[in-house]
Amino acid sequence: MSRVLTLTLAYDGTDFSGWQRQLERRTVQAVIEDALRPMASGDLTAIAAGRTDAGVHAAGQVVSVAIDSALSIETLQRALNATLPPDVRVLAIAEAPTGFDARRAARVKTYHYAVWNAPALPPHARRLTWHVAPPLDLDAMNRAAAHLVGRHDFAAFQSAGGTVTRTTRHLASSVWREVDWGTDALGVFGLPADGNQSRLLRYEVTGSGFLRHMVRSIVGTLVEVGLGRWSPDDVVAVLASCDRARAGPTAPPHGLTLWRVDY
Amino acid sequence: MSRVLTLTLAYDGTDFSGWQRQLERRTVQAVIEDALRPMASGDLTAIAAGRTDAGVHAAGQVVSVAIDSALSIETLQRALNATLPPDVRVLAIAEAPTGFDARRAARVKTYHYAVWNAPALPPHARRLTWHVAPPLDLDAMNRAAAHLVGRHDFAAFQSAGGTVTRTTRHLASSVWREVDWGTDALGVFGLPADGNQSRLLRYEVTGSGFLRHMVRSIVGTLVEVGLGRWSPDDVVAVLASCDRARAGPTAPPHGLTLWRVDY
Repeated sequence: MSRVLTLTLAYDGTDFSGWQRQLERRTVQAVIEDALRPMASGDLTAIAAGRTDAGVHAAGQVVSVAIDSALSIETLQRALNATLPPDVRVLAIAEAPTGFDARRAARVKTYHYAVWNAPALPPHARRLTWHVAPPLDLDAMNRAAAHLVGRHDFAAFQSAGGTVTRTTRHLASSVWREVDWGTDALGVFGLPADGNQSRLLRYEVTGSGFLRHMVRSIVGTLVEVGLGRWSPDDVVAVLASCDRARAGPTAPPHGLTLWRVDY
Repeated sequence: MSRVLTLTLAYDGTDFSGWQRQLERRTVQAVIEDALRPMASGDLTAIAAGRTDAGVHAAGQVVSVAIDSALSIETLQRALNATLPPDVRVLAIAEAPTGFDARRAARVKTYHYAVWNAPALPPHARRLTWHVAPPLDLDAMNRAAAHLVGRHDFAAFQSAGGTVTRTTRHLASSVWREVDWGTDALGVFGLPADGNQSRLLRYEVTGSGFLRHMVRSIVGTLVEVGLGRWSPDDVVAVLASCDRARAGPTAPPHGLTLWRVDY
């Protein structure tokens, strides 16, 4: 029975060389395809909505795959999660129309970037957050982030090696939030004794598409603003320059999570 | 300047062979002592309030060390966190009276044990929680847990290899809670798409002292109750038997965190 399925995946990107299959590297695509293959006839190719880079996580990656299999969705999900390594999980599977392509059909994607803003980085947070020790000015970062909403040429925020020629993208939302952990959840980060010195800040960005390293370049730039090195309005000039050399450093991959994909 | 310091530590126990120094193993004690030694004259020995087993985490481990060093507390903390590997952090340092011993002086210790109760274990939770897929009866587990409060002979919950002869201990508190993550914090566990199927349950136990594997044996037993295999009152008979064979299996180490130590 030939059909198209969509899989919603969560993964810890720490030990993956990104999404895309590469020779002799451990990638999410290879792990997913290798787990699906024994459950289907013939070959198959998994297409991800967002091709995450090495070290980048996913909370709601969406993958489409044309597959020849008679197994029920429930059986497939159970069998996959029994087969897959523990750093990737299938959260949901659904049937999709013939020809559905998770990348082309994606309307908007949302990424989250987590920054641990405190003198010390708790061990449990180290795989998921970027540690920035000096206090960040959240208001200034939000004034800067607001300048990026709407349709702009984001060439200044594209890493060398990006292959696209059209660099205009539309951001529907671009905002920093302080994550409220309540009093209970801190335990996961090992924080009873640190006296509320720790803040988890999260940049949440939703857009129609993203250039190579675009979110990480934006975060690196906005953190410069948060440190007081640049003013929020400097970001307007960076954007207008279309010059990567004018933007801030690229933030490290491990703070970034592909949060959700909307169709 | 000879003095006694207390260090409050958080660590991710995943990649440690427990607290206690062992030949050719990576242990927290060895890592801490090796980091302190260049900052002091002469040798030193770090004494932990709780000697956590391999794989067990700490959020508020307290360590005492007699040390000959003139460095300020602030300098020591900064230097230690710059030297230590990222899976262990010094959250605080304080001066202690001569002769202070973090283990002997500890009045009560609190452990937390985290259980991920949902069909699938999110990748980001896998190092910190025990995955129990079938739904657990929280009320039944709490009725069973309440039987353990007070002074009892806990021999039934001591693993083989425990060396103590007196097995009576006092538990001040023994309770299960469902951890409320709010809506924000779930992102760390990669859960936007799982439709609220996931519950994080946490066993919180405070006592004057604990036998070998005692918390994990209690958790393994209470989970049997939560699965409906035993009734809450069966725990009374297990306790009275003083027979390890009557208790449930020992829960795995990676769900356990030494949460805090009170003096």
